[in-house]
Amino acid sequence: MRHLLDTRTLDRETALRILDVAEDMAETQSRQVKKLPTLLGKTVVNLFFEDSTRTRISFEAAAKRLSADVINFAAKGSSVSKGESLKDTAQTLQAMGADAVVVRHSASGAPQTLATSGWISAGVVNAGDGTHEHPTQALLDAFTIRKRHFGADSRGRDLSGMRIVIVGDVLHSRVARSNVWLLTTLGAHVTLVTPPTLIPQNVSLWPVTVRYDLDQALAEGPDAVMMLRIQMERMHAAFFPNEREYTRLWGLDAVRVAGLPETSIVMHPGPMNRGLEISSEAADSAASTVLEQVANGVSIRMAVLYLLLAGERNDDEGVAQ
Amino acid sequence: MRHLLDTRTLDRETALRILDVAEDMAETQSRQVKKLPTLLGKTVVNLFFEDSTRTRISFEAAAKRLSADVINFAAKGSSVSKGESLKDTAQTLQAMGADAVVVRHSASGAPQTLATSGWISAGVVNAGDGTHEHPTQALLDAFTIRKRHFGADSRGRDLSGMRIVIVGDVLHSRVARSNVWLLTTLGAHVTLVTPPTLIPQNVSLWPVTVRYDLDQALAEGPDAVMMLRIQMERMHAAFFPNEREYTRLWGLDAVRVAGLPETSIVMHPGPMNRGLEISSEAADSAASTVLEQVANGVSIRMAVLYLLLAGERNDDEGVAQ
Amino acid sequence: MRHLLDTRTLDRETALRILDVAEDMAETQSRQVKKLPTLLGKTVVNLFFEDSTRTRISFEAAAKRLSADVINFAAKGSSVSKGESLKDTAQTLQAMGADAVVVRHSASGAPQTLATSGWISAGVVNAGDGTHEHPTQALLDAFTIRKRHFGADSRGRDLSGMRIVIVGDVLHSRVARSNVWLLTTLGAHVTLVTPPTLIPQNVSLWPVTVRYDLDQALAEGPDAVMMLRIQMERMHAAFFPNEREYTRLWGLDAVRVAGLPETSIVMHPGPMNRGLEISSEAADSAASTVLEQVANGVSIRMAVLYLLLAGERNDDEGVAQ
Repeated sequence: MRHLLDTRTLDRETALRILDVAEDMAETQSRQVKKLPTLLGKTVVNLFFEDSTRTRISFEAAAKRLSADVINFAAKGSSVSKGESLKDTAQTLQAMGADAVVVRHSASGAPQTLATSGWISAGVVNAGDGTHEHPTQALLDAFTIRKRHFGADSRGRDLSGMRIVIVGDVLHSRVARSNVWLLTTLGAHVTLVTPPTLIPQNVSLWPVTVRYDLDQALAEGPDAVMMLRIQMERMHAAFFPNEREYTRLWGLDAVRVAGLPETSIVMHPGPMNRGLEISSEAADSAASTVLEQVANGVSIRMAVLYLLLAGERNDDEGVAQ
Repeated sequence: MRHLLDTRTLDRETALRILDVAEDMAETQSRQVKKLPTLLGKTVVNLFFEDSTRTRISFEAAAKRLSADVINFAAKGSSVSKGESLKDTAQTLQAMGADAVVVRHSASGAPQTLATSGWISAGVVNAGDGTHEHPTQALLDAFTIRKRHFGADSRGRDLSGMRIVIVGDVLHSRVARSNVWLLTTLGAHVTLVTPPTLIPQNVSLWPVTVRYDLDQALAEGPDAVMMLRIQMERMHAAFFPNEREYTRLWGLDAVRVAGLPETSIVMHPGPMNRGLEISSEAADSAASTVLEQVANGVSIRMAVLYLLLAGERNDDEGVAQ
Repeated sequence: MRHLLDTRTLDRETALRILDVAEDMAETQSRQVKKLPTLLGKTVVNLFFEDSTRTRISFEAAAKRLSADVINFAAKGSSVSKGESLKDTAQTLQAMGADAVVVRHSASGAPQTLATSGWISAGVVNAGDGTHEHPTQALLDAFTIRKRHFGADSRGRDLSGMRIVIVGDVLHSRVARSNVWLLTTLGAHVTLVTPPTLIPQNVSLWPVTVRYDLDQALAEGPDAVMMLRIQMERMHAAFFPNEREYTRLWGLDAVRVAGLPETSIVMHPGPMNRGLEISSEAADSAASTVLEQVANGVSIRMAVLYLLLAGERNDDEGVAQ
């Protein structure tokens, strides 16, 4: 695996390989000493043009458990703010010895540009780019669904026949996009439930069902309900007239959770707006996998860094370029 | 030891145990290679809701010398600033694998809430909460007093019969509070010297003597004089009319140091306002333990992290919950 | 070697020794596992009073590859911003166990003060002070020139007879100053090319030739052309009336590069203002060593930290004090 840029071009075989390696990683983490020497001498740079403490820390923890050196590069206050180009920044980091660059950027496609322009040979991991993709989030979500469903018997399995409902602001959500591609690649059927103002224009080209009525979607008994975070800073009045109304129509509360099949799970990528898109009762219910998702995020990122840095790094592997 | 939240409920036996382990740690630090493998594979998160570079770095150095992985989480710019609750932040950090959370917070009681609400199982260390407590500061102060007094013969000893004077803004000082409880638990007698406007209302319930005249208190020949930092940002005109007047009445200068017994020590938690609560001559005098306190701080924090993470972690140990 | 404070007082023998150790370091970096156990248990503190992500990361990468613990101390938000003196900050860091302090400061001479005042015994490395010096930058530049010229046969060689042209805002440039001293110590001849408004007043005391016409200087076929970064924030209208005019007269473009001898190299300390002091064609040309300089920077800093912390640290060595 050379890079991890998106899930749209990630094939089923590679996706399953990442999930299976993440199973191995999760297993090592449950033992007494969690540190593996696998990436000793490798340097992982977290190149964050947007603040995201949670994602940065998750990659940092993953890299450190594999004994890599981690260097955090926040664009703020750096030469980037002095006008340095993405190209020069990336080449500088590689020249300093970066073996992998984990990049978060407000511009959709920035990681792709970094990886495919020939500027650098380091592995590039997309940690969220604009409204485009956030592939490790989708991988950890798929991992969580699989693990809850198949338990110790997860390895090698995909999500064939499973039904996942994604609820909220799909228009602005890279998490939703990455999940749509990955979950369908793994055989699941995805339903989007979203206010009519928050649905992407080209959604008819996506392999999904679209609904506007949450209760109708939940009545079908999905295997997982994935709530998206409302990003208040992106909400214009035109999209989003009223918080109480949003919660009533598209929020997940205890009543709606109670109506789900017993084996259904409730997911949220965090941080949650408790009381807005999800109630505290729903967030803390037995169906909730919110904290498992966080823990699985470290395992997935360990797996991705491992496959990028300790694997054979063969360009012809058919992995997302 | 499960958590370290305060010194008020810390019993004598546990306090002495921490001091004695810190002696062992200090000893290892004096050797050529200072790194111990003790906490390899453990993750310590510094969760700082208030800036405090000194305290954060001291914990970071302590954790790294024990080979733990350290992750710094500053609330600014994080999901906390997006409205995430303390509970969700803490649970997220633990789900990422935090074995101990070192927390500084502007709200008194935040570490207690974190530790006792059942939200997380990670060990919690209070690194300063509001005007409540700062237990590792008091422990390093006690360690410093004991070490100056007993030298290589410190282990197992308490501070019975010693007389400590604490001078300054006791009203706003968590350092003063933590020291009052710990030093008296260890058998010392504490005198507070403070402007009448900067004395807590409930001080009559504390096991201390209160004086308003510094020279009178110093004339009794205390074993240690602990100067508190004046936090100018907290000083309203009503409390604190005039810097020169403050220095004249409650500042420690060379003349006052010269009047102390030869074995007395001069302490300050840092950073010092030289020329305000302490003169440069006093700060740099042979009696001053300011830099020893900093060095001992690393040993104390190594001891606390060791007891939290490498010890048996028995809930019934009678340690501060 | 006790400290590295400047190149003005760095003697030829010590400079060559640093360059030769850096060759060894560069060699280890080209192998599979780049981590050396040399500085295990040592603590390097990056004490940065000015933002400089590139330089800080370069030192951080260097220290981590030698297995040192690294602690980043940014003055912003720290006790420094509460008025703590440089002396107290430095002594605090040393008391916490800092074996070396890498300091960047806006005041010329701050690292010198730190090292020579007797405040601390830790090794001090100047990572840029005001408009004074930036010695590791000059060392990496000299290393780059030597390596391009002599290749695998570099060890032990100086730059005798080589001609280096430094172009740009010499007045404000610590990089220019450090290079002038080091390159001439190593036997090179330095020519400064600068707008008449951006030449230091005392330049007649420097061992250099001064020119105002870039094309004239380039016509002499220098071995290296070192472009300085225009720091727009320092440019007053009086110095710098017009960007286009600057680029025309003192910028390096493809035409000017084409006129150089084939073995000449084009250098820039980064970050570059592409299109201002250097065109993209020049920056990305085969003559350009911009990325080699970055990579060599890590090797030089590994060498300096190694000599400071693993060497004999003999005060009489005749190294820059």
